[in-house]
Amino acid sequence: MRRVVLKNNDFQWIDVVSPTYEELENLGHEFSIHQTAIQDCLQPEHLPKQEDIKGVNFIIVRVFDENAPETANNVHQLTRKIAIFLSKDFLITVHRVDLSFLDELREKWEQSQSIHFNELVVLVLRDLLKGVIKSYEAPLVTGQGELERFEATIFEGKSTIDSVQNLYLLRRKMSIYQRMLYLFQDILIKLDSPFELHSPLLQDLREELESLCFLVDHTVESADNLLTLNLSLASYKTNETMRVLTIFSVFFMPLTFIAGIYGMNFDYMPELHWHYGYFAVWGSFVGFVGLIYIWLRRNGFL
Amino acid sequence: MRRVVLKNNDFQWIDVVSPTYEELENLGHEFSIHQTAIQDCLQPEHLPKQEDIKGVNFIIVRVFDENAPETANNVHQLTRKIAIFLSKDFLITVHRVDLSFLDELREKWEQSQSIHFNELVVLVLRDLLKGVIKSYEAPLVTGQGELERFEATIFEGKSTIDSVQNLYLLRRKMSIYQRMLYLFQDILIKLDSPFELHSPLLQDLREELESLCFLVDHTVESADNLLTLNLSLASYKTNETMRVLTIFSVFFMPLTFIAGIYGMNFDYMPELHWHYGYFAVWGSFVGFVGLIYIWLRRNGFL
Amino acid sequence: MRRVVLKNNDFQWIDVVSPTYEELENLGHEFSIHQTAIQDCLQPEHLPKQEDIKGVNFIIVRVFDENAPETANNVHQLTRKIAIFLSKDFLITVHRVDLSFLDELREKWEQSQSIHFNELVVLVLRDLLKGVIKSYEAPLVTGQGELERFEATIFEGKSTIDSVQNLYLLRRKMSIYQRMLYLFQDILIKLDSPFELHSPLLQDLREELESLCFLVDHTVESADNLLTLNLSLASYKTNETMRVLTIFSVFFMPLTFIAGIYGMNFDYMPELHWHYGYFAVWGSFVGFVGLIYIWLRRNGFL
Amino acid sequence: MRRVVLKNNDFQWIDVVSPTYEELENLGHEFSIHQTAIQDCLQPEHLPKQEDIKGVNFIIVRVFDENAPETANNVHQLTRKIAIFLSKDFLITVHRVDLSFLDELREKWEQSQSIHFNELVVLVLRDLLKGVIKSYEAPLVTGQGELERFEATIFEGKSTIDSVQNLYLLRRKMSIYQRMLYLFQDILIKLDSPFELHSPLLQDLREELESLCFLVDHTVESADNLLTLNLSLASYKTNETMRVLTIFSVFFMPLTFIAGIYGMNFDYMPELHWHYGYFAVWGSFVGFVGLIYIWLRRNGFL
Amino acid sequence: MRRVVLKNNDFQWIDVVSPTYEELENLGHEFSIHQTAIQDCLQPEHLPKQEDIKGVNFIIVRVFDENAPETANNVHQLTRKIAIFLSKDFLITVHRVDLSFLDELREKWEQSQSIHFNELVVLVLRDLLKGVIKSYEAPLVTGQGELERFEATIFEGKSTIDSVQNLYLLRRKMSIYQRMLYLFQDILIKLDSPFELHSPLLQDLREELESLCFLVDHTVESADNLLTLNLSLASYKTNETMRVLTIFSVFFMPLTFIAGIYGMNFDYMPELHWHYGYFAVWGSFVGFVGLIYIWLRRNGFL
Ligand SMILES: [Mg+2]
Ligand SMILES: [Mg+2]
Ligand SMILES: [Mg+2]
Ligand SMILES: [Mg+2]
Ligand SMILES: [Mg+2]
Ligand SMILES: [Mg+2]
Ligand SMILES: [Mg+2]
Ligand SMILES: [Mg+2]
Ligand SMILES: [Mg+2]
Ligand SMILES: [Mg+2]
Ligand SMILES: [Mg+2]
Ligand SMILES: [Mg+2]
Ligand SMILES: [Mg+2]
Ligand SMILES: [Mg+2]
Ligand SMILES: [Mg+2]
Ligand SMILES: [Mg+2]
Ligand SMILES: [Mg+2]
Ligand SMILES: [Mg+2]
Ligand SMILES: [Mg+2]
Ligand SMILES: [Mg+2]
Ligand SMILES: [Mg+2]
Ligand SMILES: [Mg+2]
Ligand SMILES: [Mg+2]
Ligand SMILES: [Mg+2]
Ligand SMILES: [Mg+2]
Ligand SMILES: [Mg+2]
Ligand SMILES: [Mg+2]
Ligand SMILES: [Mg+2]
Ligand SMILES: [Mg+2]
Ligand SMILES: [Mg+2]
Ligand SMILES: [Mg+2]
Repeated sequence: MRRVVLKNNDFQWIDVVSPTYEELENLGHEFSIHQTAIQDCLQPEHLPKQEDIKGVNFIIVRVFDENAPETANNVHQLTRKIAIFLSKDFLITVHRVDLSFLDELREKWEQSQSIHFNELVVLVLRDLLKGVIKSYEAPLVTGQGELERFEATIFEGKSTIDSVQNLYLLRRKMSIYQRMLYLFQDILIKLDSPFELHSPLLQDLREELESLCFLVDHTVESADNLLTLNLSLASYKTNETMRVLTIFSVFFMPLTFIAGIYGMNFDYMPELHWHYGYFAVWGSFVGFVGLIYIWLRRNGFL
Repeated sequence: MRRVVLKNNDFQWIDVVSPTYEELENLGHEFSIHQTAIQDCLQPEHLPKQEDIKGVNFIIVRVFDENAPETANNVHQLTRKIAIFLSKDFLITVHRVDLSFLDELREKWEQSQSIHFNELVVLVLRDLLKGVIKSYEAPLVTGQGELERFEATIFEGKSTIDSVQNLYLLRRKMSIYQRMLYLFQDILIKLDSPFELHSPLLQDLREELESLCFLVDHTVESADNLLTLNLSLASYKTNETMRVLTIFSVFFMPLTFIAGIYGMNFDYMPELHWHYGYFAVWGSFVGFVGLIYIWLRRNGFL
Repeated sequence: MRRVVLKNNDFQWIDVVSPTYEELENLGHEFSIHQTAIQDCLQPEHLPKQEDIKGVNFIIVRVFDENAPETANNVHQLTRKIAIFLSKDFLITVHRVDLSFLDELREKWEQSQSIHFNELVVLVLRDLLKGVIKSYEAPLVTGQGELERFEATIFEGKSTIDSVQNLYLLRRKMSIYQRMLYLFQDILIKLDSPFELHSPLLQDLREELESLCFLVDHTVESADNLLTLNLSLASYKTNETMRVLTIFSVFFMPLTFIAGIYGMNFDYMPELHWHYGYFAVWGSFVGFVGLIYIWLRRNGFL
Repeated sequence: MRRVVLKNNDFQWIDVVSPTYEELENLGHEFSIHQTAIQDCLQPEHLPKQEDIKGVNFIIVRVFDENAPETANNVHQLTRKIAIFLSKDFLITVHRVDLSFLDELREKWEQSQSIHFNELVVLVLRDLLKGVIKSYEAPLVTGQGELERFEATIFEGKSTIDSVQNLYLLRRKMSIYQRMLYLFQDILIKLDSPFELHSPLLQDLREELESLCFLVDHTVESADNLLTLNLSLASYKTNETMRVLTIFSVFFMPLTFIAGIYGMNFDYMPELHWHYGYFAVWGSFVGFVGLIYIWLRRNGFL
Repeated sequence: MRRVVLKNNDFQWIDVVSPTYEELENLGHEFSIHQTAIQDCLQPEHLPKQEDIKGVNFIIVRVFDENAPETANNVHQLTRKIAIFLSKDFLITVHRVDLSFLDELREKWEQSQSIHFNELVVLVLRDLLKGVIKSYEAPLVTGQGELERFEATIFEGKSTIDSVQNLYLLRRKMSIYQRMLYLFQDILIKLDSPFELHSPLLQDLREELESLCFLVDHTVESADNLLTLNLSLASYKTNETMRVLTIFSVFFMPLTFIAGIYGMNFDYMPELHWHYGYFAVWGSFVGFVGLIYIWLRRNGFL
């Protein structure tokens, strides 16, 4: 489905949603777009790239899909492809599903068509790329928040196997956004500038992207550090648990053994007939407890 | 065994399968190919490379062998070598065994020999290199699938020593594909372009390769992360197991000791003759259980 | 709130604290500052950057906030933004809160306005950037000190879960200073030098910054090494604890079992009626202790 | 001991074995070799390097010593130094001990002295450098084989402390070969080409070296991965062992406690006099076993 | 305290030990040294650097302090600063304490003042820088030796918490030498060559430095590998200890339970009155031992 968003003498923006192969072919013939570019448009899994084909700037970007299901965990579930063809005369955007930020953009530009050409293409492109960048802001901020919640969980000693698994999944999603953002950074670097793109407007885009890269780097790094910290703390707790077990065992094993001795039924066991035998055994219990206590102290168990 | 796949006035493609040393020597003399290149052809373990010898482009590529046995785990079991000699006048491909993708290619081109020279060589070469790249797609997708199954296994807490070992072997295979793909990327970068190779057709090859590199990087990284996660979860489980053991020990050791005391056979043990002695001991059991419960609670064991 | 710190025929320094949007807009019109720069001024979370906009050097730096709360642990709690506009004719500094080092700087320069232009701008800028760099000195030295305290704790075997968590938090803060310092290093490299900035004065700044980078790198590295060491030592202690537990168990389990045997109440147990049965059992206790001792020795447990 | 291997009007190869300081000094004067180069010749521990001194190419290489003892584990025990002086007129090789590959080379070239100069120097140098590279092939292939044996050991669950230590030593040796090969790669890159060295002959050397680098990288990486895998599996086994211990303890501790209760000797213990008391206790044993079984099941221990 | 070491018409070397601020200021005026360089001289903690100030080469190096206390573990305790000013006319060295290698150098050069200028400055500078490099040889060789002792300790299974801590401290010192040596390498690269410094003499310095870098890299890497190996072996030993504990527990828990059953005092326990009851129990003991043995075997515990 093709729609002309804006059009004046010099320039037009055409937005194409979910085209059939024939529609794309026609578009290609009309605007002299190379066959391989048309094929890239049809591959929903294509990674971001920038390419110059005979004067036409062909860009593929992937935008975070706000409707991605909770369980999405790969590039193709989390993000949506937009193919962009850009020349002096036209801007064509091709995508499979409606994207809310593109809808808003179309609406905005359908109403204001009177601006001078040269600014027009820059402004539209800037808005478009900004929308792509901005789409990653929400999931990154959400991720950062989740991470802080995990950190609190770990610090309160309440982390569970589930929270470790969630942390791992979060790290994975973040790693995917990281790759998408760095691929997008490559595109911005390679992007030709026949339209004054090196102006402050594009500089602004770059900074916004860098800022997100900084955030995503930090989040991935923090996730790794948290996983390590958690492992480290688990190790600590195991150690502590072992210590308690050992202390109890070291105290009670000898005592229980002594009690076992005097529970034997031999006919001739002199101690059993001593009047204060029982109390002597109690004395030995107390004595052993004392000795063991000192020994544990000296060996750093207590 | 030499076979001329296509031939016109300007250009011919010769496919050589499992040649003897003499056949290769003859070929070398006929097409003025340097001695060292001939020797590289005979080494089945040669790594991918690109070299310019007196106007002849000499390329070695390694293609994934779809007939590799399940247990294959090194470069030479998993991949097959193809030596390629390319000049303005000829394309020669040398390999030891028949490869299905080459068979298909030969068939395709044997039938259509009427295209203009300049496009011909580019199209044939493109098809050839594309076949090499495509050959890695299947094992990578399989690997990705296996990885996702491991992830599910680990998340369900059902990972075993076997699954860890399989994950390790998978990582190893992926690491080998990774090396092959990156060596191939080097070749594409170095490839001379006397035949308009920097056209969209080659660009397309590069993107396909980059996309596989992206996939293989991601798979290796994910395998490493899964191995770490698994270790981390094992550590958690050990901790949990220890905790259960410790709790049981801490409860039963003192109680069993008390029972042991009153199982002793001393002649004179006043408590034994108290009418409610037995019930008093039961009381002490209950009391100790209570105290231990509180202590465990306070120390975070329960 | 705008204040002119110094002003002569050629040059003025204007310091703007906590401006409203209107004040900034006016400033922008007056000094021909681009709209996007004005907007960056208003974003309190903006990362350090350097940019050339139509002859105006626009720099954003982040200075360590000495009033940051103890619990601060992200870029925006730990540091404060200063936006700097620098041209041949003016230096404008914009920030949200009063910063003590800027107050001192203003005081210093308000009094001494008679220096020749060319040196003036360099000296003021040098002082300003030096203040930014110096602000990180205190937290880094504090961090280094804390780290040494952790090291002592770990070496004395007194590390606790709390100390590991504090070490992690310290590492995180250090990692943030590290990023800020390296971003600042980028700025110093890109900084244009229409004012003889490549003089020894700026060289001095670079060295001070490099020295802090060296310190922060070392601190982060040391923190990582300490966390690893600590984990390693915890592992050692677990091992030692296990060994003690095992030794006790291996000694007492067989003995307690023997005592249990002769505590059974069978009518016919010949050993019970042997005159020296009890002493024979004691002999077996001693014998088993000896055998177990030898066995433990040989297996490296003792 | 100096020996002229081959000599014609234009060129000579002199091989010097285990020279005294005086012999080296004389050689230096005769061929105008700089003093520092002479001193490097005398240092048996010198690392590989390439240097141009007034038209003389001075190369130091280290060749794997096939007579290195089994326990050798540093650069100087595993490898031997060869100093090479190369100019248009002469090739001088200096080494401390006889090396079998050099002996063979000398023999080969002593017999065939009639080749044209220009090819001569290239062919001799190529043979020499090829010998150096080839010397590492045997230990790398041996190492690869050992590694595969370790892998099998680990996969069969038969790894011991000894095998881990051997793996570590293997990794160390491989790491040394890796450094030597990469230093040699630097030399090949820097090597001047007054003798058509960039011909296919040298290209061949480079590929052989690259192939060994590939192999050694892979071996070191695999050793690291195996050590990690082994640690991971050890962790698994510990976990499994703990689980078994815990299951036994959880079953027998309560049962043994109950038996202990009715082993007490109180005068008044009503249950002891019940006719079916004993069978009731057996019933409680069975009941507890059932309850514990269910509990262990639910908690994932069984 | 200033001392002229050598002086002829063209050149002089002045060595300044522990100067006051006034002495340095005077020196600065006399030789036109920039203010910031003078201030760097006074900072005892300054890191190595090289800088060109108006024709004067200003170099700061840090030399290993052979008198550093055993417990020294940071840059400033382990190394001493030397500031060097070098121009066509003079060499000035500034340091706080007497350094033995500088004493020797001064003595050597005070006696031989008749050499031609151009060589003189190169030779003196070479000697000076060589002294700095050589100073690190002793601690590196010591460190390497200590490391080998640790390795032996770990391989004999005698590593203790103390040896791990010492290994950590050794690694830290090595890491500091590593940084100093790499910073020195930067200086050598940047060092201007108005005095034929790129001659074989300087090349020699570079190699010596590279060789130490190689050694220190190897030592740090080995220390890391040893720490990992040690952790790995500790993990192994824990596993082994656990296995022993589990085997004993699995054997004795059921047996002790059975003994406990027949130690109960129920009035009616038919087995107790069987004539061969006691022997039957012994039979059950033997039977259980057999069954458990088989079970442990099958599960890989024995
Ligand atoms: Mg990932
Ligand atoms: Mg990633
Ligand atoms: Mg990544
Ligand atoms: Mg970043
Ligand atoms: Mg960053
Ligand atoms: Mg652990
Ligand atoms: Mg591998
Ligand atoms: Mg790899
Ligand atoms: Mg790899
Ligand atoms: Mg490689
Ligand atoms: Mg990638
Ligand atoms: Mg990638
Ligand atoms: Mg990773
Ligand atoms: Mg962090
Ligand atoms: Mg960070
Ligand atoms: Mg960082
Ligand atoms: Mg640094
Ligand atoms: Mg550094
Ligand atoms: Mg490190
Ligand atoms: Mg090593
Ligand atoms: Mg090494
Ligand atoms: Mg290495
Ligand atoms: Mg490699
Ligand atoms: Mg590999
Ligand atoms: Mg350190
Ligand atoms: Mg360091
Ligand atoms: Mg370092
Ligand atoms: Mg090195
Ligand atoms: Mg190296
Ligand atoms: Mg670990
Ligand atoms: Mg571990």
